[in-house]
Amino acid sequence: MKQLIQAVKGTRDFYPEDMAFRNWLYGKIKKVSEKFGYQEFDGPYIEYLDLYKDKTSEEILKDQAFSLKDRDGRDILLRPEITPTFARMVAQRSQQLPSIIRWFSFGRAYRYEQPQKGRSREFFQWEINILGPESPEADAEIIAIAVEYFKELGITSDEVVIYINDRSYFEQILEKNGIDKKYTLQIIQTLDQYLKLSREAFEGKLNFLNPTQLEALKQYITSKGDFKNSEWLTRLFSALGNYDGVLDYVEYSPLVMRGFNYYTRTVFEAWDKKWNDGGLRRSLFGGGRFDNLTEALGGERVPGVGMAPGDVPIQVFLESLNKMPEVKAVVAKVLVTKFNEELSAKSLEICSKLRSSNISCEVWIDSTSKLDKQLKYADQKGIPYVAIIGPDEEEKKQITLKNLDNKTQESLTLDEAISKLRLSE
Amino acid sequence: MKQLIQAVKGTRDFYPEDMAFRNWLYGKIKKVSEKFGYQEFDGPYIEYLDLYKDKTSEEILKDQAFSLKDRDGRDILLRPEITPTFARMVAQRSQQLPSIIRWFSFGRAYRYEQPQKGRSREFFQWEINILGPESPEADAEIIAIAVEYFKELGITSDEVVIYINDRSYFEQILEKNGIDKKYTLQIIQTLDQYLKLSREAFEGKLNFLNPTQLEALKQYITSKGDFKNSEWLTRLFSALGNYDGVLDYVEYSPLVMRGFNYYTRTVFEAWDKKWNDGGLRRSLFGGGRFDNLTEALGGERVPGVGMAPGDVPIQVFLESLNKMPEVKAVVAKVLVTKFNEELSAKSLEICSKLRSSNISCEVWIDSTSKLDKQLKYADQKGIPYVAIIGPDEEEKKQITLKNLDNKTQESLTLDEAISKLRLSE
Repeated sequence: MKQLIQAVKGTRDFYPEDMAFRNWLYGKIKKVSEKFGYQEFDGPYIEYLDLYKDKTSEEILKDQAFSLKDRDGRDILLRPEITPTFARMVAQRSQQLPSIIRWFSFGRAYRYEQPQKGRSREFFQWEINILGPESPEADAEIIAIAVEYFKELGITSDEVVIYINDRSYFEQILEKNGIDKKYTLQIIQTLDQYLKLSREAFEGKLNFLNPTQLEALKQYITSKGDFKNSEWLTRLFSALGNYDGVLDYVEYSPLVMRGFNYYTRTVFEAWDKKWNDGGLRRSLFGGGRFDNLTEALGGERVPGVGMAPGDVPIQVFLESLNKMPEVKAVVAKVLVTKFNEELSAKSLEICSKLRSSNISCEVWIDSTSKLDKQLKYADQKGIPYVAIIGPDEEEKKQITLKNLDNKTQESLTLDEAISKLRLSE
Repeated sequence: MKQLIQAVKGTRDFYPEDMAFRNWLYGKIKKVSEKFGYQEFDGPYIEYLDLYKDKTSEEILKDQAFSLKDRDGRDILLRPEITPTFARMVAQRSQQLPSIIRWFSFGRAYRYEQPQKGRSREFFQWEINILGPESPEADAEIIAIAVEYFKELGITSDEVVIYINDRSYFEQILEKNGIDKKYTLQIIQTLDQYLKLSREAFEGKLNFLNPTQLEALKQYITSKGDFKNSEWLTRLFSALGNYDGVLDYVEYSPLVMRGFNYYTRTVFEAWDKKWNDGGLRRSLFGGGRFDNLTEALGGERVPGVGMAPGDVPIQVFLESLNKMPEVKAVVAKVLVTKFNEELSAKSLEICSKLRSSNISCEVWIDSTSKLDKQLKYADQKGIPYVAIIGPDEEEKKQITLKNLDNKTQESLTLDEAISKLRLSE
């Protein structure tokens, strides 16, 4: 036998039952977004490389890009993330758009990572941003939306935590201690590994700092209360306190930095609260403030903040918590069977009438199949009702309606059947 | 000023008002599909080139492919159509899937065509197929779904026509007249231009036929009733007659062939009925029967039939008919204003409580903005209610609720406001 052509590695097929979960998740995302007054937008899945250069992380552009060339030789990427598209769309209409832009989107992004549990090369992201206000209250709103999302998914503050930091506060500390800007990236990368490194290894990686500088950095890491010196973080946590139950989900963390170059102030990451105790050891998603992105794309400056939760990590997390919803693919309400060739037209006609009454129905196609086979099909697919039109029914101008759930059946006129099926929503 | 980075040519940005139309169209598509018992699926947007080779048309693969290479050097395409992905997914599970597979999808496809009205390089397609039955009744169902779609969009049988043909019937005529198979493709291409060519030019292009053969072909084209010699088409039209009002929308046409190599029997195309009288001169969409596609991909043979209406031509058509729906982007029900810094927390708190009662609301961020500016924002965005919490309201434990539609306002407790807002759905 010929070899079956396979899907591209790292992509996913959504069979109806997988699609049911994705639609469920999208429904939650839409509900939460719209509750906060965010409007749905969408952009292209291909963009010029220029849109990401010096904005998205180096790692993504160098190692993880799906790239192609257009016929004029220009570099195009399958978008590795959605934020730059969002910023471009805002920059293109910054004159006409309202002073506060609240938009969300749910679409695909592409990264050439090693496929593994919790990662795929083609994934979905919920992109949600507020542009316009340069205020910690806007940041608080995005974080409150993240919490609302967790609540909507049934995930409690015992199970998840959102770590929050302020990049500019961290940069101030480096500056105050005379640490050269050229070390900033290296220090960020070392902080990122802090919890995995021994104290010696950590200090070894920072051997370009003098003892006072190293001490200041260690002080920054360990004095969790210290963020009160950041006016921004203080106002942010104060604003978070105005949302019901949000403070239970959040925590200041000096270690959160995020890899994207365009983040300017607030950055945050959601983590499995048991990440250090058998839980998932990667962030579920992150976000942050990007005040200069529209300007970096050549537009006017429009400050913004947002986040981009992916669909794969949250599914893995729900599975690990045993909190996956029981969602099923939508099925028709009725299967209209075929008795024989002669009555085939009658079956089609009845199906057509059921649909006119907004009752979804499938019709069996082959008029030579045994009734048993047709009933078995309905049962396996989970179709709740079966309509039978045989010679007896045809003579009496009735149909036999079988309820496969409770194994009952009755003879009804089509109008009676329609009334019954409508009631059984 | 720096040049703003542009979108890739031929792609589209969906601002909230564009997204509202797309969601409206998707809602119609979903409704029609589910009414006929079709389940939603989805596949990757990138597939190996092998999936399309010798199946999709040469033109699409040679001239219109967006192609890239994976890191093992294998050719990947941004999918130019969805049917091969569908067939691959069925072939992969042909043992486990039910005997009738009714699936639909709404997703993107990519073709490097010259961007123009009615065409874009990144477009959406509604892919809907039934696999399993090799029967004209299945073909009739797909065509009945196309008609239901037109009805759902408010497009009448005076405005649109679905031309139907049977490729295998046409091939039989060639065979019966001893026309060599090597000419089939050339004849199909000539038939495709028939209406644009003069009689002389048409005959000139077919100068490899002898007079009897040419006469037989002309007979085929002009004798519209002739399809009754095709048992398949006869049964198809008879099945179409069992659907209410479907025959008004359909017509036999010997000229419809479709460009895809995998079509085996029934092919059809929907056209602006006035295509020859100022209407759109390209098909709105098409479909057909593909009995050997899963086998061609290396799987078991599973016959199928389906269609793939795109979003761009139907939008252009609705616009030309002046039948575009009046859809608006979803907005929050309430804007909660900010009176001053002191009362800022109060505004956030009220917004949080409105949301707990499932009332969508936006909060103004900047606590130093004039109330007028905030009211203007709500009005321009179309937010119907504005809540004001000033010192008076705070003292009386009330809020002022302004209705921007009828310019009235009242002082209410939060509970009263919630009841009122819930009633005003």
